Amino acid sequence: MSNKFEYVTDGAEIYRRSFATIRAEAALDRFPADVAQVAVRMIHACGMTDLVTDLGWSPGVVKSAREALRNGAPILCDAAMVAAGVTRRRLPAENEVVCTLSDPSVPGLAQELGTTRSAAALDLWADRLAGSVVAIGNAPTALFRLLELIGAGAPRPAAVLGIPVGFIGAAESKEALAANDLGLEYLVVRGRRGGSAITAAALNAIASEDE
Amino acid sequence: MSNKFEYVTDGAEIYRRSFATIRAEAALDRFPADVAQVAVRMIHACGMTDLVTDLGWSPGVVKSAREALRNGAPILCDAAMVAAGVTRRRLPAENEVVCTLSDPSVPGLAQELGTTRSAAALDLWADRLAGSVVAIGNAPTALFRLLELIGAGAPRPAAVLGIPVGFIGAAESKEALAANDLGLEYLVVRGRRGGSAITAAALNAIASEDE
Repeated sequence: MSNKFEYVTDGAEIYRRSFATIRAEAALDRFPADVAQVAVRMIHACGMTDLVTDLGWSPGVVKSAREALRNGAPILCDAAMVAAGVTRRRLPAENEVVCTLSDPSVPGLAQELGTTRSAAALDLWADRLAGSVVAIGNAPTALFRLLELIGAGAPRPAAVLGIPVGFIGAAESKEALAANDLGLEYLVVRGRRGGSAITAAALNAIASEDE
Repeated sequence: MSNKFEYVTDGAEIYRRSFATIRAEAALDRFPADVAQVAVRMIHACGMTDLVTDLGWSPGVVKSAREALRNGAPILCDAAMVAAGVTRRRLPAENEVVCTLSDPSVPGLAQELGTTRSAAALDLWADRLAGSVVAIGNAPTALFRLLELIGAGAPRPAAVLGIPVGFIGAAESKEALAANDLGLEYLVVRGRRGGSAITAAALNAIASEDE
């Protein structure tokens, strides 16, 4: 093995080539321009150009989320990894990035409510929910709980990125979001795929149109 | 839409059912038992049972990484998301979780070295590298740089989880790790797939055998 490998070391050039590869390979034609831009960054985060086949969205989701962020809306995340993945310098208004999962009250709240800690943590979002941008990238139970809370009268976020991952409840929770009659703007990855990296990438693409 | 959805709200039960689904669907037969256990958790993090087709490993990687963690080895991460994904209560020795990417010296170092910030950040690992567990879940340039540093005489980690994601250099960097003649124990996901969630999941599975 040689000591030196041949590879691109210019960060900007890596981004440029990556995004060019994605635009060449991914079937982006059916998307509105703003959703396509978000899709490119989501693909970049997972390495899979076929992610677009599972993408679902409401027509106003990017516009609504983008305006909310410009107006200073907080970003409410279900998992620390999602919050860690938000690129702070892309945010238009030094928006607050909130994850309440590790709040000391959450384990007790979960027991009281008879649900997961991820779902119980949403009860601590209440006073920030109106007009926020919600980014759920881990727990299906958090997404179900969000729909329940809003169904029961909690304030509506400006947009919900609902991209939990996994085998139990993930697909169903995303279908429930996409079928919502609560007037929620949404972005989902249907099926089992999803996760914190894809979710944070969607948020980062919405926060700034820079590639 | 009803206010209440039907879904499993017991966290332990969600894990149990998830892992049972993965074990039923994924082709785990060809794996040694310890690698299979890690693979299950990696699949859990991405929702894709076919991830196993891309898995590559050295026979001693799980044993070596596990022993290192038990002995207090630090975990060196290329990205904040990987570090955020490490479940602290699974760690056997309150191991230090290190990510040097946001160190103020890194942008200058990157310019000086003519490489990305992700790669330059590794130069700050030097005094912790010997016997560590390295978890690279984002940047191919970080993985290439690691191989260069060790090739040039830097101390060897106990194991390298090399699972960067993407379109430019990711596949190549992981092939280079898998082909290393430096005696490095390794775990990779070949091809474009990878990322911080899969990487953190592999680390969490190694840190504790609990499902």
